[in-house]
Amino acid sequence: MTTETGATDTGTAETGRRGGGRAARQALRASARTHADAFLTRALKPVEIVSDEVLELITANADTILAEVGVEIRGYPSAVERFRDAGCDIDGDRVRFPRGLARTLAATAPASYVQHARNPAHDVTIGGDATVFAPNYGSPFAHDLDSGRRYATLADFQNFVKLTYTSPHLHHSGGTVCEPVDVPVSKRHLDMVYSHLRFSDKALMGSVTAGERAADSVELTRIAFGGDLAGRTVLTSLINASSPLVWDATMLAAAEVYASNNQACIITPFILAGAMAPVTSAGVAAQTLAEALAGIAFTQLVRPGAPVVFGSFASSMSMQTGAPTFGTPEPALVLYTLAALARRLGLPFRSGGALSASKLPDAQAAYESASTMIPTMMAGVNFVLHAAGWLEGGLAIGYEKFILDEDQLGMMAVFAKGLDVSENGQALDAILTNQPGTHFLGSAHTLANFEHAFYRSAVADNSSFEQWTEDGALDAAQRANVIWKRRLAEYEPPPIDDAIDAELQDYVTRRKAELPDEFA
Amino acid sequence: MTTETGATDTGTAETGRRGGGRAARQALRASARTHADAFLTRALKPVEIVSDEVLELITANADTILAEVGVEIRGYPSAVERFRDAGCDIDGDRVRFPRGLARTLAATAPASYVQHARNPAHDVTIGGDATVFAPNYGSPFAHDLDSGRRYATLADFQNFVKLTYTSPHLHHSGGTVCEPVDVPVSKRHLDMVYSHLRFSDKALMGSVTAGERAADSVELTRIAFGGDLAGRTVLTSLINASSPLVWDATMLAAAEVYASNNQACIITPFILAGAMAPVTSAGVAAQTLAEALAGIAFTQLVRPGAPVVFGSFASSMSMQTGAPTFGTPEPALVLYTLAALARRLGLPFRSGGALSASKLPDAQAAYESASTMIPTMMAGVNFVLHAAGWLEGGLAIGYEKFILDEDQLGMMAVFAKGLDVSENGQALDAILTNQPGTHFLGSAHTLANFEHAFYRSAVADNSSFEQWTEDGALDAAQRANVIWKRRLAEYEPPPIDDAIDAELQDYVTRRKAELPDEFA
Repeated sequence: MTTETGATDTGTAETGRRGGGRAARQALRASARTHADAFLTRALKPVEIVSDEVLELITANADTILAEVGVEIRGYPSAVERFRDAGCDIDGDRVRFPRGLARTLAATAPASYVQHARNPAHDVTIGGDATVFAPNYGSPFAHDLDSGRRYATLADFQNFVKLTYTSPHLHHSGGTVCEPVDVPVSKRHLDMVYSHLRFSDKALMGSVTAGERAADSVELTRIAFGGDLAGRTVLTSLINASSPLVWDATMLAAAEVYASNNQACIITPFILAGAMAPVTSAGVAAQTLAEALAGIAFTQLVRPGAPVVFGSFASSMSMQTGAPTFGTPEPALVLYTLAALARRLGLPFRSGGALSASKLPDAQAAYESASTMIPTMMAGVNFVLHAAGWLEGGLAIGYEKFILDEDQLGMMAVFAKGLDVSENGQALDAILTNQPGTHFLGSAHTLANFEHAFYRSAVADNSSFEQWTEDGALDAAQRANVIWKRRLAEYEPPPIDDAIDAELQDYVTRRKAELPDEFA
Repeated sequence: MTTETGATDTGTAETGRRGGGRAARQALRASARTHADAFLTRALKPVEIVSDEVLELITANADTILAEVGVEIRGYPSAVERFRDAGCDIDGDRVRFPRGLARTLAATAPASYVQHARNPAHDVTIGGDATVFAPNYGSPFAHDLDSGRRYATLADFQNFVKLTYTSPHLHHSGGTVCEPVDVPVSKRHLDMVYSHLRFSDKALMGSVTAGERAADSVELTRIAFGGDLAGRTVLTSLINASSPLVWDATMLAAAEVYASNNQACIITPFILAGAMAPVTSAGVAAQTLAEALAGIAFTQLVRPGAPVVFGSFASSMSMQTGAPTFGTPEPALVLYTLAALARRLGLPFRSGGALSASKLPDAQAAYESASTMIPTMMAGVNFVLHAAGWLEGGLAIGYEKFILDEDQLGMMAVFAKGLDVSENGQALDAILTNQPGTHFLGSAHTLANFEHAFYRSAVADNSSFEQWTEDGALDAAQRANVIWKRRLAEYEPPPIDDAIDAELQDYVTRRKAELPDEFA
């Protein structure tokens, strides 16, 4: 099947990986996969786990929630006024939506949009049958096998930008891949946005921790794109609700900056079921829909047609400790349900990721991550934040975890292309010309197809027990440790115009001088 | 949703797990899940990744393979005669099927059947919307964190029978859970079948390594069931093809014993793509269908209506070493396709499992296992061998891996029940009576539902980094190590009539005396 409609990455950063022995074998495997798609186009239909009637019921419940409880707008009166003008019922900072109004307001949002990257080969489509993988977001800690777990720094941040840039399986550079805790909070966003623009040429996310930081993100990106965005969407940024049913001034201010500049927002209720919503999955789905619709409506009131993504982050909870839990079945049910609701609304959808509560890149981390990522893929999620690196409930980003997760993303891209039923794929002649009991290792069909027949993992060890023992009896995390170090050692930055780089650096320097140092 | 149609396990073997501190917390979690279903009933429809037209195409290709190449019957002339009498074209030991004949012959097999267990509460339905999980099968090695990897023994075999018996998530005792290498090959089957019957009361599999060993399996089971099977199906046994397109005398002899006694066979082409079949997935599917149909037709010629399962084991291959690889996307595509083909034929389907090439219970093992098991579940597989314990491409069964896998099976059982859209599940009143910004931890709905709201993992650590560090900073495999040891220490065998046990032991002793010692 020829469903690879995405643009291709020439993958120059992936070449030149050569070494001796096992390293050489790994390099051989890696080099075979450098021509990656700019994003993933799913040939398989999304999996639907609930009927249209159930989707209708949950939609009606969201309408009831918005009509009867409504949402509270904290400290942002201009948003309240926008909602009043649109026909909402206003009671102080409480905004109630007549049934169906929020959906009507959301209807001006596009079903999909292109987010432009500094390198046009990395432009991504967000929505429809496209899936875009972006790395971990928001962790204050970093973890690797050598140093263990410690506060993340700007050096860590830049390392993960570089690892994402050189990844054939991640399509998007992400945003706060980790918190550069060594930089004042008030200035962090400048270093982060600059790092994405300088050390990668994939699409990126902007700051959302204040309206003026969002404005800085837009300005830096404008410079990087030659001084004029010309209406292009070049940022997709993460706007979280304060569940249950609150939207706060910080997030609304950032959303307003982005929407008014035709930049995209991911409107995401972040729900730990039992705390920010009821424990039951259908309840989580209805409340998420209500909160998301209010936020999406806001972006469309700011600028009808502004690109916006319906987001959901939902986790279950440990009864013992109240801690969030991941990879459990209940959030997977929520994910499939909300993906279907987003399709029904005609909106791009963000959810999922390689989520885990584990502190290590161990079996728990992998099982939990797979149990979120496979539903993420099967449900047809369009934008996948946290697709690589997430550990410890999001508190940490892991270097080895990143490599392990990334490998899985590569497999999903192959799966999503579906069954090849071309004549070559059917291989009927090969079977008919082969005698019973005779192996196919030397058949012409095998020789013609072998090299690209199977996904080749960069990190899995498939050798014999004896060979594996001779190679040092490493576990998967130890092999991943070797891989990320080699990737960083061989990293070369993408080209950038010297004048543009100077202008970016001037902007960062000037703004840093203007802003106070704040660490909280 | 009330889709738990299976019988319930009173779970007496699961009670009494109490200890201090962390162990007590784990015991609390475990005790909450002792009332397990006898098998899993899926409320969710199977995922279809190919169209009816593609299924028709692959079926036509299988017809062509059976008509033009046919299958070779090695060393079992009576099977050739059965096929001749049924209308096949015979040329020596080659049997060719006029188009459609194999499917016509297979059509007398039941769409589902009940396999009776020694404890009727553990009877399982195989077929339809039922899924049955059985442990690992066939490994000559065992692995645990304390001893590493070594040849498996009868003690290991019995340990895994006990772990399976005490598992709330495994429904079936399996067969050769590992090879008891310390017992002569010629006598192993007696100890294995006796161990299943004595140390468990779940349904089991019989020996397939010789016709007379299959007969011993039937006789031992007959004794355990009170001397008369009364037409009941009490064994489901694994009959593998010698792909490509060969059926050998050993397997046919065993299948004949089972089918003639109305016992079930799982007819399984075992295909390492590129070696036993072409490398392309649609080719693997067509060849698997052809081989399986020939084997299924044989069982129906022996006894029309004998229960039989359409099986498939398909893996990809490392281009570097020729070693089988697992958890890759291509076998998942094969799995979904063959599950749909089995449904089209109206036959129960066996495939999948917690498959991995890893030598350790590490992230590779978990990622690969999840990448097979989730498709296994989503595709609607009816009988899942290797659902727990498999390591190293099947060469080893792992104690810790078993515990980690079993936990995932529990999660799948919850997922398969689908979204609860009862009034309680919708939780609309809870949301409507909650104020924005107010958490749900103390709401009546939360308190009423909390205990059973979320799957509680026995092995995941969801605590804080500080708590986890204080608890010893164990990884998932180290926690699993504690769990299997406790389970074995607290194991109590199911009741058995003393006279029946004596008769079983007499049979084993007598047959052992009759049989020569053989170790190869």
